[in-house]
Amino acid sequence: MAKLKLGMVGGGQGAFIGAVHRIASRIDGQWELVAGALSSDPARAAASAEELGIEASRSYASYEDMAKAEAARDDGIDAVAIVTPNHVHAGPAIAFLKAGIPVICDKPLSSTMEDAEAIAQAAKDTGTLFVLTHNYTGYPLIRQAREMIERGDLGEIRVVNVEYVQDWLAEETTGKQADWRTDPARSGAGGCVGDIGTHAFNLASYVTGLETESLAADLDAFVPGRRVDDNVHVMLRFKGGAKGMLWASQVAVGNENGLRLRIAGTKGGIEWAQENPNVMTFTRFGEPKQILTRAGAGASPAGLRGTRTPGGHPEGYLEGFATIYAEAAALVRHAKGAPLPEGVHTPDIEDGLLGMRFISACIASSRNNAAWTML
Amino acid sequence: MAKLKLGMVGGGQGAFIGAVHRIASRIDGQWELVAGALSSDPARAAASAEELGIEASRSYASYEDMAKAEAARDDGIDAVAIVTPNHVHAGPAIAFLKAGIPVICDKPLSSTMEDAEAIAQAAKDTGTLFVLTHNYTGYPLIRQAREMIERGDLGEIRVVNVEYVQDWLAEETTGKQADWRTDPARSGAGGCVGDIGTHAFNLASYVTGLETESLAADLDAFVPGRRVDDNVHVMLRFKGGAKGMLWASQVAVGNENGLRLRIAGTKGGIEWAQENPNVMTFTRFGEPKQILTRAGAGASPAGLRGTRTPGGHPEGYLEGFATIYAEAAALVRHAKGAPLPEGVHTPDIEDGLLGMRFISACIASSRNNAAWTML
Amino acid sequence: MAKLKLGMVGGGQGAFIGAVHRIASRIDGQWELVAGALSSDPARAAASAEELGIEASRSYASYEDMAKAEAARDDGIDAVAIVTPNHVHAGPAIAFLKAGIPVICDKPLSSTMEDAEAIAQAAKDTGTLFVLTHNYTGYPLIRQAREMIERGDLGEIRVVNVEYVQDWLAEETTGKQADWRTDPARSGAGGCVGDIGTHAFNLASYVTGLETESLAADLDAFVPGRRVDDNVHVMLRFKGGAKGMLWASQVAVGNENGLRLRIAGTKGGIEWAQENPNVMTFTRFGEPKQILTRAGAGASPAGLRGTRTPGGHPEGYLEGFATIYAEAAALVRHAKGAPLPEGVHTPDIEDGLLGMRFISACIASSRNNAAWTML
Amino acid sequence: MAKLKLGMVGGGQGAFIGAVHRIASRIDGQWELVAGALSSDPARAAASAEELGIEASRSYASYEDMAKAEAARDDGIDAVAIVTPNHVHAGPAIAFLKAGIPVICDKPLSSTMEDAEAIAQAAKDTGTLFVLTHNYTGYPLIRQAREMIERGDLGEIRVVNVEYVQDWLAEETTGKQADWRTDPARSGAGGCVGDIGTHAFNLASYVTGLETESLAADLDAFVPGRRVDDNVHVMLRFKGGAKGMLWASQVAVGNENGLRLRIAGTKGGIEWAQENPNVMTFTRFGEPKQILTRAGAGASPAGLRGTRTPGGHPEGYLEGFATIYAEAAALVRHAKGAPLPEGVHTPDIEDGLLGMRFISACIASSRNNAAWTML
Repeated sequence: MAKLKLGMVGGGQGAFIGAVHRIASRIDGQWELVAGALSSDPARAAASAEELGIEASRSYASYEDMAKAEAARDDGIDAVAIVTPNHVHAGPAIAFLKAGIPVICDKPLSSTMEDAEAIAQAAKDTGTLFVLTHNYTGYPLIRQAREMIERGDLGEIRVVNVEYVQDWLAEETTGKQADWRTDPARSGAGGCVGDIGTHAFNLASYVTGLETESLAADLDAFVPGRRVDDNVHVMLRFKGGAKGMLWASQVAVGNENGLRLRIAGTKGGIEWAQENPNVMTFTRFGEPKQILTRAGAGASPAGLRGTRTPGGHPEGYLEGFATIYAEAAALVRHAKGAPLPEGVHTPDIEDGLLGMRFISACIASSRNNAAWTML
Repeated sequence: MAKLKLGMVGGGQGAFIGAVHRIASRIDGQWELVAGALSSDPARAAASAEELGIEASRSYASYEDMAKAEAARDDGIDAVAIVTPNHVHAGPAIAFLKAGIPVICDKPLSSTMEDAEAIAQAAKDTGTLFVLTHNYTGYPLIRQAREMIERGDLGEIRVVNVEYVQDWLAEETTGKQADWRTDPARSGAGGCVGDIGTHAFNLASYVTGLETESLAADLDAFVPGRRVDDNVHVMLRFKGGAKGMLWASQVAVGNENGLRLRIAGTKGGIEWAQENPNVMTFTRFGEPKQILTRAGAGASPAGLRGTRTPGGHPEGYLEGFATIYAEAAALVRHAKGAPLPEGVHTPDIEDGLLGMRFISACIASSRNNAAWTML
Repeated sequence: MAKLKLGMVGGGQGAFIGAVHRIASRIDGQWELVAGALSSDPARAAASAEELGIEASRSYASYEDMAKAEAARDDGIDAVAIVTPNHVHAGPAIAFLKAGIPVICDKPLSSTMEDAEAIAQAAKDTGTLFVLTHNYTGYPLIRQAREMIERGDLGEIRVVNVEYVQDWLAEETTGKQADWRTDPARSGAGGCVGDIGTHAFNLASYVTGLETESLAADLDAFVPGRRVDDNVHVMLRFKGGAKGMLWASQVAVGNENGLRLRIAGTKGGIEWAQENPNVMTFTRFGEPKQILTRAGAGASPAGLRGTRTPGGHPEGYLEGFATIYAEAAALVRHAKGAPLPEGVHTPDIEDGLLGMRFISACIASSRNNAAWTML
Repeated sequence: MAKLKLGMVGGGQGAFIGAVHRIASRIDGQWELVAGALSSDPARAAASAEELGIEASRSYASYEDMAKAEAARDDGIDAVAIVTPNHVHAGPAIAFLKAGIPVICDKPLSSTMEDAEAIAQAAKDTGTLFVLTHNYTGYPLIRQAREMIERGDLGEIRVVNVEYVQDWLAEETTGKQADWRTDPARSGAGGCVGDIGTHAFNLASYVTGLETESLAADLDAFVPGRRVDDNVHVMLRFKGGAKGMLWASQVAVGNENGLRLRIAGTKGGIEWAQENPNVMTFTRFGEPKQILTRAGAGASPAGLRGTRTPGGHPEGYLEGFATIYAEAAALVRHAKGAPLPEGVHTPDIEDGLLGMRFISACIASSRNNAAWTML
């Protein structure tokens, strides 16, 4: 089966998430990177392209050039990955959507609601595929949790507790990663809430299928001089009566990348933590807790679908991310006429808009003394 | 050293917490149980007394009789343990305080704020010792955590996350333990928030030393027909700017007795969970996380003070509870002239009142759509 | 119910295991300590007795005096606890057995096989009760594991892996605890193998019910100048074909008191570790692993029998030890005519002899280049 | 940088390890698969090749044809991956070595010592690169453990405890994976000892740098009718006086892929388990245990070298395997003149021979009643 051709905007030397996208795209052998506008700095763009084996003729000075040129080629890219800081999502996303090139975009959707809506409008107007890399939804046990809830293993959901806690911004920090994430002009008005709060919110929504009605949020910027939030406390009310709590923090000393989800329903409860993602516990009320392992005994169809190795051979962050890319490939092929495999659940433009509404609601609520705010 | 004489109100056959208090009182060999008004049912009271080796003459039909008779004896009890349901705390507490007999009372202080204040007034008027068994403060690593924060190991506290989650009331339940705890006439207006929310709140306050300024609470009664809350979400604002979240639940399927405390400051963070209480993790920002064990390498003076066995020989719930009794003994002996050993930190009447204000504030806030409510 | 009267030989100030025995004897309210020969140093014996509330007239200068005097009293002790170093077990044990006073003796049975056999002979000749405090058998989940295997939950046992690893003797150490344990004249020819290897061997035998046929052992004394072993590797062959490995060490840096048992049969497997003793995992072949908690869902009759608190309220080392004392009380009362409660499984003189044969076989095998040695 | 060209022998549809090798080769973007003799079944070979995007002209009917044809092409493969069952390692390995094409071969080296030595001879005679995929050495924390020991963090090593326990062969099983692994004609005389025992032995040797002097092994075939061992107990003696235990099992019910390594030295101890490979504990004697995370605080140069994501973003089995492929690429490029990057530690032919000697010694020892056998 021929590989699909991938382009990339952003992700030049020194970038973190661009390298992750590239590995994720390679793991299942569905994509090859052939074009890029890898940096706004022309020298870095060229050097990065060479290092990545991209032909000089397909290393572009700007995403506008790239969208135009690739759309015109017979062998043009099948999709573009946008891995720039948040404030540079809308420009390329809209350009490629309008050029009819599917977009795989990092989260959150954008730095402003206006830009986000413009992207959504472009996706709608053009009918071009848009995938948002809320990569944590790609973990097999997250797929299994979603399926278990859907088929009623937990009964009616009552309580959702989600947290995403880190400590890398516990002190004033500089560096490529920290700089733009703490600059409202580039990250958007939300700091921690946009960078990782959206992941937590997306994950809870994805797994439970619950719709959030309103929230009450208390945001802080604990580090002196910080211009965006670095700690986020949220109470959630879901349609139908379930309740939730969400904690996101970049100053929670002792935590590296602590994304953790706990859900309790009338009949059962589950718990999963990203740092050891091959394990999930499940308790049927009144019975002993079970340890469900990825691809192990008790794996559900959805849990098995995205796994590459047997139980006990741990998969990690990159494999979960790769599942997003594998599904993006399936969707691109489907758009060209191939049948769609079962179980494709990749986050899309609607999830992106929902994430933006979450950020906005948190900020609005917090500014209004944590008043309940509709999503 | 002669043992102190203990009386007990409540705790007859079939009771849970009475038996716990008795074991706790025995562990360090400081107390012997010699008198009781163990049940409002005379037959059960007599049978329970006989089983416990209490002489028939000191098995009383009522706490009033007991307070009077014991106060009159030369060899009267040195303290009374009150282990009745919440609504029967005030009566005996006030009776014994007025009789000059020190009181060791289970938590929460009472079922109503009025009763709680009456107890406090009696304690103040009589100057008699009052100990509240927030037993989780007795764990050695909790003592160590408090000391570490006091001496600055964590820097300035920013974020507190405390939870106490169970699942035993996830369905409609009957039985001696469940009945009174879900009956507002006996438990007070708070259900889960009073029964275990207060433990969580007390623990967070005890360890951090932070004063809570206000809170926003969202309480639910998920089980159909339940008349008190069974799930509690709270956001906390502490004096000085720290923030907190508190989750208490009796419907969180998959949890037995999940009291867990996480604290992050400018310099460090700790994490402790009651179900494996001999272990606490501590991270100095930028260094590897450490596993601190009870009585192991890294134990602090306060952490060592209340331990009975070497590291790796686990102590549990009963030993933590026993420390409260050992300290009550020290306080009783101190009231008689003995020097007070270092490090006695047993919760007292003020902690009891604070717990009642916490319950009231949670209920008031929740009724007011989770509005911020002063404590 | 009147308490039984306990005497103690050894356990004066500064001793570790004596204090443990005393707490264990108190927890269930079955025993009161009334007599002792607490130290071979008369001043320490007297001071210890006073501290423990033993009347001066029942604080004896020697165990011989004590056995004689207590046997002569109408209110003499119901049993004696022997908590001296290994080489001082036989003397008092035989004296009390001959005086008709039941003996509760710390492990291993003795420092030499000759002494051990003499104790056994005395127990046999006198018909007096002898209890050996292999306390780890008192943990509720160990009782449950034994019951599960007995009733066939694991099928036929194939493989046993037991280890007991510590690090407190990783360097040359002095102090009351270390001194006698590393002196062959006092501990016996076995160091680590006698002190903790026997615990591991006893636990594996107790839980599985398997009889050891032969073993091959490789013992080392890693610390320069050490006169007894401090690291023990053993391969085990059980009657019927099962196989085992045993590792005991006092130089395994990073381990406090790591007693851990894993057993696999044709149908299932279990795993338990003493440092968090309220949890055991159980896997039925082909099904998800279950987490069985003490007194939680899935608790078996034997698992429930010795528990004092609900699931999630951890019990520890002292409670497991207390179960040995509670059962010793039941056996003493039974010898006086009371019915014996179900499920009394306290290790006895036979277990003591078996432990001695294990030590001897390990030493003999190791001296013979780890040749297979019959037990 | 142009990708290297990879060929594959074995790994057609339905194979496990072939797919793993392919993903591993893709992750770091160093290899592209261009040729194969994927199956001895021509139809399956062709179908597999098509699925993998291998041109029909480079899908060969036999490895002999492939070696010859690829060696003759200007754009011939830069290396071949051999992923056949053990008894089909020697044929292709020798053919490609003789053709001057570097070999990346799955472990163990072969099914017989004779074949293994023939491979080694061919490697020596031709001077062609040979890499053995003991993939577990590719985990970053394993690299770090090796470096820590090398630089003396643990002092002098005393005790090594390594185990690799699974349960997938606990009952009689059929299927592509089980069949050849339990057939001595295909797997070699060793079953479990060859399949996973060698991994455990390799890992312990790799990390500690210790040379094994002799071993005593007790092997069993527990499943009725099984013709090779399925449970392996080994005691190890290392040069210089350190001792070890090794347990490998495919019938240890409750274990998926439990490769676990514990090492204690005079100054420190470490513990690592493959199923959660991003975490290792390290204890300096007398200090609190530290949790070292992959790429987290405390990461050493070697620990950082092979990581792709920040701490808390778990890497897994495939990434560890990919490091072997990345290093094979570095070695291939180095053979062509490129400088060799620091820290390349890929297992080679010597490790393969050592593994074969380990298997032989275990079998010989076990047949000789576990007599000590030189390696």
